Parts: sequence; C-alpha cells; structure tokens
Amino acid sequence: MVERPLVLIFDVNETLLDLTPLQPQFADVFGSADPIGEWFARLLHGSLVANHTNRYRPFGQIGAEALISLAKRRGIAISPQRAATIVSTMRQLPPYPEVAGALQRLRETGFRLVTLTNGSNETVAEQLASAALDRYFERALSVEAIGRFKPAAEVYRYALAELKVEADEALMIAAHDWDIIGARAVGMPGAFIERPGSVWGLPDPPPEIVVSHLGELADLFAATMLF
Amino acid sequence: MVERPLVLIFDVNETLLDLTPLQPQFADVFGSADPIGEWFARLLHGSLVANHTNRYRPFGQIGAEALISLAKRRGIAISPQRAATIVSTMRQLPPYPEVAGALQRLRETGFRLVTLTNGSNETVAEQLASAALDRYFERALSVEAIGRFKPAAEVYRYALAELKVEADEALMIAAHDWDIIGARAVGMPGAFIERPGSVWGLPDPPPEIVVSHLGELADLFAATMLF
Repeated sequence: MVERPLVLIFDVNETLLDLTPLQPQFADVFGSADPIGEWFARLLHGSLVANHTNRYRPFGQIGAEALISLAKRRGIAISPQRAATIVSTMRQLPPYPEVAGALQRLRETGFRLVTLTNGSNETVAEQLASAALDRYFERALSVEAIGRFKPAAEVYRYALAELKVEADEALMIAAHDWDIIGARAVGMPGAFIERPGSVWGLPDPPPEIVVSHLGELADLFAATMLF
Repeated sequence: MVERPLVLIFDVNETLLDLTPLQPQFADVFGSADPIGEWFARLLHGSLVANHTNRYRPFGQIGAEALISLAKRRGIAISPQRAATIVSTMRQLPPYPEVAGALQRLRETGFRLVTLTNGSNETVAEQLASAALDRYFERALSVEAIGRFKPAAEVYRYALAELKVEADEALMIAAHDWDIIGARAVGMPGAFIERPGSVWGLPDPPPEIVVSHLGELADLFAATMLF
C-alpha cells in the first residue's frame, strides 16, 4: 500500500468522463462507432509527435486533425468545421455514474482534489462545469500551461510545483496505463482505474492501487482513514 | 525544389513494405482486418510513451503489447506467443511493386541509399533480405542504436552523424507525415510518399516533394540530374 497522499490528481477523459456521446457522431461519419478507438489512439500519438517536434497546439485541435485524416484514409471528406464540431462533443461528456459521489466522499475525507488533463484550460473548465464536477476540485490543471502533453515528465513536475507538494505526497489517478507510468517516472504513485475497456497493457507492473471505479477508491481510503 | 541530396534516407514499414499480409492474421483474431489501423496507432503511441519514460524496448515487443491490449479491450484473450507470432509477420512483408525498380534507378543515378526505421536491427535486416531489397542499401539504420523512436530529434541526428552528412545533404523519405516533420525539426528536407491511405494530416505544410510512389521520385531526380 502506498502512503496516504495529500493530493489526489485526476485525469479527466475516460477517468472521470465517459466518451460514449461521441459514438453517434462517429456513426454518422463512418457508419459505425468503431473508429473511435483508432481516432483516440491517433490523437494520443499526434499529441506526442507535437511534444517531440515542439509543435504544441490544443488537444482538441489535434483531435480534429486526427479525425480528418482518419476519414480521408477511408475515402470520406469532412470539413474542418464538422470535425471541430464532433470533437467539441468532448466538452460536454457525462461523468461515470459513481464519480460525483466518490469525489464527495474523498473530499469529506480531507483530500485535496485536482484534475490534470491533456485538454486545454478552456475545455476542462467547460467539461467540469457541464458534468457538475467543478465544485469538488481545488484546481483544474491543464498541460496548456507548459505546452507539453502527458506523459512528458515536465507535466507532472509542473503539477507538483503548482500544488506545492512532493511527488510522494500526491497520487495520480487514471484509466490509462501510460498516464500512471508517466507519473511514476517522476516518483509519483498511481491508482489505475480498470474500467471496462481500460487495460493495463504495459510490461511494467501496475501500481499498488488498482480499482474498477472511483467508488472503490473512496472505500479504500475510508477503510484506511486512521493511517 | 530542394537541393539535390547526397543521401536518401528511407523509412521502411508502409514506405517500402506493404503491411497487407497482416490482414488475415488480424481477421483470425478479430473477425475483421479493420483493427489494424487502431493497432498501428497504439503501437506508435506506445513507442513515444517509451521515449517519454525512458523505457525503450523493441518496436516488435511494443507491437505485441498493443495487440494484446487491443484484443483484451474487445474481450478477446490472446497469448503473448500468438501476439508475437502475428507481429512477426512484419518481418516478411512484400515491397510495394515499384520499390525495387525505383531503388535501382536511384542508385544508378548516384545517390547513397540507406534505411532508418523504428524496427530493431534484427527486424530490419530480416525485412530487407526477405523483400530482396538489401542489395540497394549502403546501411540499414535502426533506432535501436540510441534507444529512442522516431520522430525524436536524436534519431535523425544519429543517422546524420553515422552517414557523415549535414541535415541539408540528406532527404527523409516516408509515407508518414510525422516522420517527415521529425526530420524537418532537425533541418532535414523530406519527401512524402502519398500512398493510398497515407494522408498528410498535420497543420504544417507538406514538403516540396510529394509523390504518390517511389517511381515518381526516381523520375523526378532523373529529370533534374543535371543540377
């Protein structure tokens, strides 16, 4: 078991918020929602190509570029406007059902709660307000502040500096193995949320905390409150 | 038009070699070859996560990890052995039909030809021998030598140092926009091969040289031989 952290740092997309509202949008373009997986992987790759070539631009913009390319590869032309509209669906995603209750309990337990996302400041502000989750968080941090995407080490170091805590006083909570590994690379422990479809696929061992949803994480910390 | 280069540096997978032999393998696992696109994007993302967290391992291994995760996400269990076997199909891919003739002509025109791939030394040696392309190349360079994947700047700088040429004396030839952009970031010009399914999807302008296959590139250099 890791030491009891002071700050819980939450990833946003697929960790707090459910991407399923994108499905009908993709079905409209591709005839099936199945290309969402390829699109999201291309978006993530594109974000790290931007890191490598010092070409930061907002995650949503890279998402629109990835969508246009993916469509073009399949012989489908979509306008930049339409791509931007589809990607902007990400601004109004519902939280997974247990999220609000779990955040409420974690906050009552005395943790500082923050988010750290690849999305822009504007996007995360809109996402948390739309999902009625903004009330639980002390800060909503975005990689935009430093112009590099997760899992670049600078992102996690930036968050720790902003929050004025050491790496081992924080806990990175994400449904993506690469986000946990990025946090681990700067010494931060992690909690992996193994939602349906979230797979620990890296050869590195998963963190000590693996739960299937945030309610379990709240239970775990409630059970260890005395530490 | 760029200056006439001294060395032509070729990407391998999807630039020289055709990935279609993977299709029946994927169809066996997934019931359709369609997940190849998502698998390759996840493989590429995984390679850059390895760059960011200093966890280099061979590209083929990251490919097997990506395949196991992708299957698991869809409720399909495949063994590491089977995943490795499927990914090893990449070691014996056919060249695109025009490749051997175009390389022959480019070599006769006096260029130094080399490859630079994210694949390991062993993989690229086997690939070029199997495709009967090894005879055309002076060197087959792999990112393995420095333990970072393209498009990290170090990879292109390593190649230039090995080949003892300046960035503007080489030309990076690839069917992937991100590979061209990586080369450009260290000052190397590029030629984008716009094969069916290869899309320039980045906001940066494409290079001056865009051709639909390597025969066109050989034509172009034959036409400008006097320069």
